[in-house]
Amino acid sequence: MSTQMLRARAGEITPEIEMVARNEQRSPEEIRQGVASGTIVIPANRGHQGLRPVGIGRTLRTKVNVNLGASSLVHFVDEELEKVRLALALGADALMDLSTGVEVREIRTRILAECWRPLGTVPIYEAPMIAPDVSELDASDLLRIVERQAQEGVDFMTIHAGLLRRHVPLLGQRRIPVVSRGGALILHWMQRRNAENPWYDRFDDLLSIAREYDVTLSLGDGLRPGCLHDATDAAQLGELQVLGELVRRCRAAGVQAMVEGPGHIPLDQIERNMRLEREWCDDAPFYVLGPVVADCAPGYDHITGAVGGAWAAWHGAAMLCYVTPAEHLGLPTLQDVREGLIAFKIAAHAADVARGIPGARERDDRIAFARVHMDWAGQFENALDPDAARQRHAAYNARAGRSASEGQDYCTMCGPNFCPMRLVKPTDHVSARTADVPAHSR
Amino acid sequence: MSTQMLRARAGEITPEIEMVARNEQRSPEEIRQGVASGTIVIPANRGHQGLRPVGIGRTLRTKVNVNLGASSLVHFVDEELEKVRLALALGADALMDLSTGVEVREIRTRILAECWRPLGTVPIYEAPMIAPDVSELDASDLLRIVERQAQEGVDFMTIHAGLLRRHVPLLGQRRIPVVSRGGALILHWMQRRNAENPWYDRFDDLLSIAREYDVTLSLGDGLRPGCLHDATDAAQLGELQVLGELVRRCRAAGVQAMVEGPGHIPLDQIERNMRLEREWCDDAPFYVLGPVVADCAPGYDHITGAVGGAWAAWHGAAMLCYVTPAEHLGLPTLQDVREGLIAFKIAAHAADVARGIPGARERDDRIAFARVHMDWAGQFENALDPDAARQRHAAYNARAGRSASEGQDYCTMCGPNFCPMRLVKPTDHVSARTADVPAHSR
Repeated sequence: MSTQMLRARAGEITPEIEMVARNEQRSPEEIRQGVASGTIVIPANRGHQGLRPVGIGRTLRTKVNVNLGASSLVHFVDEELEKVRLALALGADALMDLSTGVEVREIRTRILAECWRPLGTVPIYEAPMIAPDVSELDASDLLRIVERQAQEGVDFMTIHAGLLRRHVPLLGQRRIPVVSRGGALILHWMQRRNAENPWYDRFDDLLSIAREYDVTLSLGDGLRPGCLHDATDAAQLGELQVLGELVRRCRAAGVQAMVEGPGHIPLDQIERNMRLEREWCDDAPFYVLGPVVADCAPGYDHITGAVGGAWAAWHGAAMLCYVTPAEHLGLPTLQDVREGLIAFKIAAHAADVARGIPGARERDDRIAFARVHMDWAGQFENALDPDAARQRHAAYNARAGRSASEGQDYCTMCGPNFCPMRLVKPTDHVSARTADVPAHSR
Repeated sequence: MSTQMLRARAGEITPEIEMVARNEQRSPEEIRQGVASGTIVIPANRGHQGLRPVGIGRTLRTKVNVNLGASSLVHFVDEELEKVRLALALGADALMDLSTGVEVREIRTRILAECWRPLGTVPIYEAPMIAPDVSELDASDLLRIVERQAQEGVDFMTIHAGLLRRHVPLLGQRRIPVVSRGGALILHWMQRRNAENPWYDRFDDLLSIAREYDVTLSLGDGLRPGCLHDATDAAQLGELQVLGELVRRCRAAGVQAMVEGPGHIPLDQIERNMRLEREWCDDAPFYVLGPVVADCAPGYDHITGAVGGAWAAWHGAAMLCYVTPAEHLGLPTLQDVREGLIAFKIAAHAADVARGIPGARERDDRIAFARVHMDWAGQFENALDPDAARQRHAAYNARAGRSASEGQDYCTMCGPNFCPMRLVKPTDHVSARTADVPAHSR
């Protein structure tokens, strides 16, 4: 049994490395070196059938993760599966099943069967299936949950191993002590048992399981700030230093590792957060939640998060965990998943353009070409969400009493007489520039 | 007859300066100096009854402008007035009536009567009321439109005076020559008449009108880039240099002036754009459209724009013109106005927090306090869009078969057993911190 990391270190170009290299327009050797050193991870449980692997690392295209899953209060299993299909269709790079409640195992099995992208979980969410109060379980019980999920084929797991007893007094400085669900469960466990973090204490056992199945450990930030006031504070940074130590232990064991990051961070602290993680965690792929750059926009946190996410991705985040409009208010609907994912696809794409990622801007150039030539089909095909664009366009036309096929060379914003594309045609100034623009059909 | 600028230069603290100082938590003298030098504008037509003035400048709170108005294809006058009320209620700092079509005068009159924030227009949009082809009008006809709108009480006007004949060949480098409606109309006029830009040629006459009514000139960027490919190109920068020259002419005449900016700009070029405007236009308030940081998200351009807007505002933009989800697809609906405005309120707020604008973060601190205490009413009251937050929360509860009053100390995301706020209460670590947190009711 071996991991992508150990095989890469042995000089092997695995099929997964090959596929990632092709998708990223990089050389297999470059990817192999990143995987060997740990700056790139390829979450790929050896038991996950049908997986199309994805590489995650600062130098690669920015990835977007979609959280979904039922809660004890809202558990429409079929709808969760619809979310899986929608997210994959719209280009999610990874999914996390964050289900809680009695059906957690059934939902996970069904999601795994459909999910051809890496699937992540937070194993401790399953603990209450075994004991209503998580502190009744001992560390071995928790490890057994991890092992079972690894056997099922989960590709990456969030483990809140960096939150230690010495950090607890630092929470007294905060407005909101803990907003991480997994972090809160572990803290509850530690306090009830008056014991150190079980994931930290038994980290070597965890590494054994992870190595056996090649589960990528996503080192969770149980103390991520939950409001701007608490951003980049002693508790957050104290935990981040421990995560750096754990990254080194993962790498020593040949286990792939990512680091999870905040959370609620004002715009001016994002770059510093990216730099600290890079330095303290030896450039392990940074997987951030948002960041959300304001606390005051419930109902719109996909936007607040996309603003921070674009900035984070430009400055070093390797994967963005999306935030939906439901954040802080309830469990997301299918439509919330759509809106959250597209918001973060925008953030990731904008950062990739800014970073000069190969091929990133081609899509924009194609859509610009379609726009100036009033090629609506071309505009829709190249849109991040073609269905939404098409439906909106039809709805705006309908408001004007027009069918979708009427007025194809203008829209209801300007009408036929005020459209700048009609007033100033490209051919007035430009000889046909079709040759150097990739066709939208490509 | 005198302008805010001339009165400020004479040492007068006008009532408008006083009101701006109070709203911005600055000294009246600081505002007076900014208005005198032109780095702050207070668009306030002396004929605009009931105006509550707003100061616009790089050092002040970031402002958000809402565009609305009918087109020839969609002209529901009552709905436009609903947009006005909604925008004002949700905190728009300025409005622009961009109506085109036969009812343009009626709509403007009705909007002006309701609009207690500065109202802007693009006078050339009225030209086709007089002649279907704008090039049939001469420069004096265009000036008469400006004068009539000034008499009616319009506070600021977009004038595309910086687009000159020498810039036209530069459009040959572009994917999309012109996306500014006003810019395209002027270019059409120039090409049909084979003449220089009439706004530029008759700029002194324009200044006379502006000075008489204290209309703030918003120097339009008719050559703003319409796709990432064209960003920060020779045409855009050539026009910006002319706008800097016109700023100096405005100031010499005692006329207030803003500069309008792009547009479609990749994330990594925004800071440079802000710096160039500041240098070339002598720190005149920069009023940008978005910027939109990707071309490929029709249906979601309020998000693409908010990402760029936050960055622009942090780096020097004084006012953001919102973009709605309808951008590139049609004329916005009432709901589009709501979503666009809140997206840009988020961007402006995030930038203000990052810039340390006095009082900006208080709202976030209040909402964080409400969150940790499971005070839903407090969370909604402090939200940028209280109604949307309240309705979403109720809808998520309804999906779980709960009433809004049930389960007030948890939500459908985590349920009662996984809520971090319940697992780790602030009182576990923190003595009551109510004293130093402003109450949400303040």
